[in-house]
Amino acid sequence: MRVAVDAMGGDHAPEEVIHGSLGYAAEHPEDDLILVGDTARIGSIAGSALPAPNVSIVHASQVVEMHEHPAMALREKKDASILVATDLIRRGEADAVVTAGHTGAGMAAAVLRLGRLPGVDRPALAVQMITESGPFVFLDIGANPDSTGVNLYQYAEMGALFAEKVLGVDHPRVALLSIGEEKGKGDARIVEATELLDRSDLRFIGNVEGKDLVKHMADVVVCDAVVGNVVIKFFEGLSTFIFDLIETEFRRPPRGPLAYALMKPGVARIRKVFDYERFGGSPLLGVKGTVIITHGRARRRMVGFAIGVGAASARARIPDLIAETFQREPTDRGDEAAASAAAGEPIDGTVGR
Amino acid sequence: MRVAVDAMGGDHAPEEVIHGSLGYAAEHPEDDLILVGDTARIGSIAGSALPAPNVSIVHASQVVEMHEHPAMALREKKDASILVATDLIRRGEADAVVTAGHTGAGMAAAVLRLGRLPGVDRPALAVQMITESGPFVFLDIGANPDSTGVNLYQYAEMGALFAEKVLGVDHPRVALLSIGEEKGKGDARIVEATELLDRSDLRFIGNVEGKDLVKHMADVVVCDAVVGNVVIKFFEGLSTFIFDLIETEFRRPPRGPLAYALMKPGVARIRKVFDYERFGGSPLLGVKGTVIITHGRARRRMVGFAIGVGAASARARIPDLIAETFQREPTDRGDEAAASAAAGEPIDGTVGR
Repeated sequence: MRVAVDAMGGDHAPEEVIHGSLGYAAEHPEDDLILVGDTARIGSIAGSALPAPNVSIVHASQVVEMHEHPAMALREKKDASILVATDLIRRGEADAVVTAGHTGAGMAAAVLRLGRLPGVDRPALAVQMITESGPFVFLDIGANPDSTGVNLYQYAEMGALFAEKVLGVDHPRVALLSIGEEKGKGDARIVEATELLDRSDLRFIGNVEGKDLVKHMADVVVCDAVVGNVVIKFFEGLSTFIFDLIETEFRRPPRGPLAYALMKPGVARIRKVFDYERFGGSPLLGVKGTVIITHGRARRRMVGFAIGVGAASARARIPDLIAETFQREPTDRGDEAAASAAAGEPIDGTVGR
Repeated sequence: MRVAVDAMGGDHAPEEVIHGSLGYAAEHPEDDLILVGDTARIGSIAGSALPAPNVSIVHASQVVEMHEHPAMALREKKDASILVATDLIRRGEADAVVTAGHTGAGMAAAVLRLGRLPGVDRPALAVQMITESGPFVFLDIGANPDSTGVNLYQYAEMGALFAEKVLGVDHPRVALLSIGEEKGKGDARIVEATELLDRSDLRFIGNVEGKDLVKHMADVVVCDAVVGNVVIKFFEGLSTFIFDLIETEFRRPPRGPLAYALMKPGVARIRKVFDYERFGGSPLLGVKGTVIITHGRARRRMVGFAIGVGAASARARIPDLIAETFQREPTDRGDEAAASAAAGEPIDGTVGR
């Protein structure tokens, strides 16, 4: 697969993004990487690692900065690396794009340049959510607020395809994130989505609650963008808060450092559970192309994993499978789908991570 | 203040609830406690602690169990302790009710027997959310899904009154929980609430995000019930998950127990930060009376704190202040308020904790 990497996007770009890409390319001769960004800087950072048989460079002179308003930035910066990279998909010169840059800009570029898949009312941004027994697919974490029940149902179909074809989960269990365990309990859109999911071919298991998110009760968990975005950022905030408190105690002399020395293997085991770098490839599902967004703070290892998710998604032809699903089952979605599609606005893309 | 305690509700009721109540009564001769439940069982559990000058008993022969559907249970169990306790407020025989029983049943009893305050479209359940520098008020965590911007605005007014008059926060900062930091960014109801809050007298600071919930960026944080409920349950699930992982390592011989011995003071400091028992009094704001709901797993210490919140809320006349606020500022709420009030359904009360 040909994976275009936004070499300039991210807190540690371009250095970490480039090294992550070159590392991936060296380990995966079956894939071709296209580094998109300032040619001179890329060359100087890559050093003797380039030329490489499966790495090419495409020049882009601009970059969307983290503090910018994405839609405005994309209008003004026609040569932004994320736009140039996304255009490679549009022109058939790449199979996937991976970015650690501005999440909103990445999503907006995808919607503006690639567009939604036929039958998809709204794209959704998914993450791989950490549990002790491996990740599950969690979406939407911020592509589109004000979702309807039809949107949630579509997120479920798209998330299930990703879980099955990319994460390798056989017949994935699908759940709605809601306010109570009882199936059908929730707000109006959850009630509507429950009806659609009950009628679908998906393995729908009903609701999960906030406390269940650390468990592996479902392989795909669906919610509105506000809920998902709050959850994923709260996950980061709360886990960091707790681990920082513990670290402070481990650093407190005289007994902390001694305790830490004793606990080192245990700390390593806990770190392994919370190894979010491994799950850092977040697909934007529902657009005409494979778009993978990774964390702004991604370093080379995480960039490598994200590229792997991009290559695997492209290889599995996820966008094609999504389009086929919604072309096959248009009647399942009810009349609301058309209305929702008509009212569907493009992502305004001011969600940052 | 006269505080009616649902002696039969909760995982550790009646024993822990009764002991918590008696402990509070002994330390607070200025307040009167009314234990509502099975007279014989209360007497036998209290033992020599009764009679006490400021404790009385009101008989109730039934209890709503945690697994029951609250609305149905309340219809069938006319002598349920939570109904009898709530009726004491209605008849002017108590100033507050405190329950560790079924959250949905407690809320439904309040709405059915006390009703909403004039001007309040929908009640909201608030919690005191933990941060390193003390709690902030977080609502709605589950009273009413499908909230409107007007509802969110009203939650903000009610939460601010509670923060100021009960928690003693001077001129509390109010924020909306949303998908982005930028003020006004969010879904339709957040946008609507932003406009109402901008026009209000509240100290509105805009949006906070999920990652900010562990910080003390605002004194009152407002969101829809689904978001709030997912967050509060995820807080419990994720923190338990992390602390369980750590405990497992501390128990792992041979080095774990030794490290634990060294870290004991540190663990105690961390436990103090996460001392949710101290913040376990959650007010249902917007009904005609002071209703405090505490955790189903509350033990005597937490019950005592919840009773304290009930007495303080009643002493501060929170329901009266809320009614005065909305009678004073009816025009601030826009035309949607009337429509929303007309459409306002009572709490269906299937939210459990």
